[in-house]
Amino acid sequence: MRAIVFDQELRYGTDYPLPETKPGWARIKVRLAGICRTDLEIMKGYMGFTGIMGHEFVGVVDRCDDAAWIGRRVVGEINAACGNCAWCDRGLGRHCPNRTTLGIDRLDGCMADFCMLPTANLFPVSETISDERAVLTEPLSAACEILEQLPLSGTERIVVLGDGRLGILCAWALATAAADVTIVGHHPEKLDLARWRHIKTVLHEEEIESGADIVIDATGSGQGIARAMSLCRPRGTIVLKSTIALQGDINLSPIVIHEQTVLGSRCGRFGDGMAMMRDFPDMPLEKLITGRYALRDAEKAFERAQQRDALKVLFDLEMA
Amino acid sequence: MRAIVFDQELRYGTDYPLPETKPGWARIKVRLAGICRTDLEIMKGYMGFTGIMGHEFVGVVDRCDDAAWIGRRVVGEINAACGNCAWCDRGLGRHCPNRTTLGIDRLDGCMADFCMLPTANLFPVSETISDERAVLTEPLSAACEILEQLPLSGTERIVVLGDGRLGILCAWALATAAADVTIVGHHPEKLDLARWRHIKTVLHEEEIESGADIVIDATGSGQGIARAMSLCRPRGTIVLKSTIALQGDINLSPIVIHEQTVLGSRCGRFGDGMAMMRDFPDMPLEKLITGRYALRDAEKAFERAQQRDALKVLFDLEMA
Repeated sequence: MRAIVFDQELRYGTDYPLPETKPGWARIKVRLAGICRTDLEIMKGYMGFTGIMGHEFVGVVDRCDDAAWIGRRVVGEINAACGNCAWCDRGLGRHCPNRTTLGIDRLDGCMADFCMLPTANLFPVSETISDERAVLTEPLSAACEILEQLPLSGTERIVVLGDGRLGILCAWALATAAADVTIVGHHPEKLDLARWRHIKTVLHEEEIESGADIVIDATGSGQGIARAMSLCRPRGTIVLKSTIALQGDINLSPIVIHEQTVLGSRCGRFGDGMAMMRDFPDMPLEKLITGRYALRDAEKAFERAQQRDALKVLFDLEMA
Repeated sequence: MRAIVFDQELRYGTDYPLPETKPGWARIKVRLAGICRTDLEIMKGYMGFTGIMGHEFVGVVDRCDDAAWIGRRVVGEINAACGNCAWCDRGLGRHCPNRTTLGIDRLDGCMADFCMLPTANLFPVSETISDERAVLTEPLSAACEILEQLPLSGTERIVVLGDGRLGILCAWALATAAADVTIVGHHPEKLDLARWRHIKTVLHEEEIESGADIVIDATGSGQGIARAMSLCRPRGTIVLKSTIALQGDINLSPIVIHEQTVLGSRCGRFGDGMAMMRDFPDMPLEKLITGRYALRDAEKAFERAQQRDALKVLFDLEMA
């Protein structure tokens, strides 16, 4: 089969073996696969991953020992939990210490004709949801995770720092539950695109009123937390939405002085992302799609994904 | 009157003017005053403070327009709130943006024969509590703040990093509400002293089982947070108890990956600290007192407070 593999460098090939089926797992014929920031990090050595790249997809189940799955269009949660530990018992398989992760940690990913996931990870996609929307379930669920961790009354003043895919999705997810959401970014065209409901947009260099109840750092840069601390009110909450390595000296004293809460927030539950797609069909998810590429054009696609104006770059497995 | 003043350098003098009384404020004759880590930071320029040092005290009200206060032995909360803003209205005067702070920010402190505070800040000290215990109300209340911010079920596994005054007080406060508390430090003699109830003590270089529900960083160093991240379980809570400036590169990704909560925790309510003193008369607070000095021996006292084995150094205003 065709696949994009990372092993010191990115390679496209056509002769990778089809994955074997195994009990409790499904083999999925991929239709669309997305490039995520994490993929770009993997290419710099993140997680020491080698294998088939990719963890965002929509596809159709091709083989499975449970026949009910065969032929169903699905998306899938990316962490394959062990199912036997205390975390799994508590329904928090996402934190299972023995988990493997699709295209990220010891499990071949979805930038290929076929990929494998436990059936427990799969979610059928309803007919009303297009492939282009369904492929965004993973990042949208990651945005929804904030709502699960931090129940909102709706009256909070919220600032989202970062106008990348994740920042925009966070702003949209939060705008479903709160009236006063501002997104701050460097790119006027991305901010334009982020407008939905009553979301306000502000350029990074403009002044923003401080005292926000909640500040989301989705900048993906080490600078975001400093601005988040200064914009957040005493006893307010800062949500760290991207894995960041702070570089250079940083004074975390404001967190203590103002008794702010910093909340790490990672992946979300696919059920939440899918419910949001269903409940908010006008959420302009398709606008996030910057381009579609054939798998063989891996190099071009990854180049495009790294350009400053890019949002979501997709591989279309039906393109030759 | 006698006073210890900081203005570029530390000075002891005997000819400072007595503070004037003003409506709503009390003048307090100081009996004991403590040296806090914050005082040492002020001497390095923290808050740009100049004036009479000190914010930990026990004393007797000497003058006040409300005669009911005169002659009462008191301790006092250190933030003089404006009383007119949204924070003050919500009972969170500690976060009032217009507040001044005793011996820290635009308000002369208590390392003097007399100091001034609003009567709203004062707490009468019951006869059963000695001066030596009462003078520790401020740091004990700061430790109690954790219990206010983070209600405990009692079954949590808690690790306190740091065997300084604040670390020990945090361990003691937490041990009143949870059974499994471990304190980690560099100093065997301080760890010995920290033993109370079932608190376990561990030397810094020893291995500690990770997966703690709650980790308190009271190290006062930039290294504490890295160890806290590694000891804390997924979805656990890290409490930052000291204002820290992180130096050099630090990877905060574990907070996001493990969805940990970081909680900044500062001063507490004196009522909580006093209630704890009343309810736990066996809490060995006096053990924290390293030495007592006359105000004129300011230099010696501050030197002593900076030694590695020092815990709480007091000024005794009755010593000549």
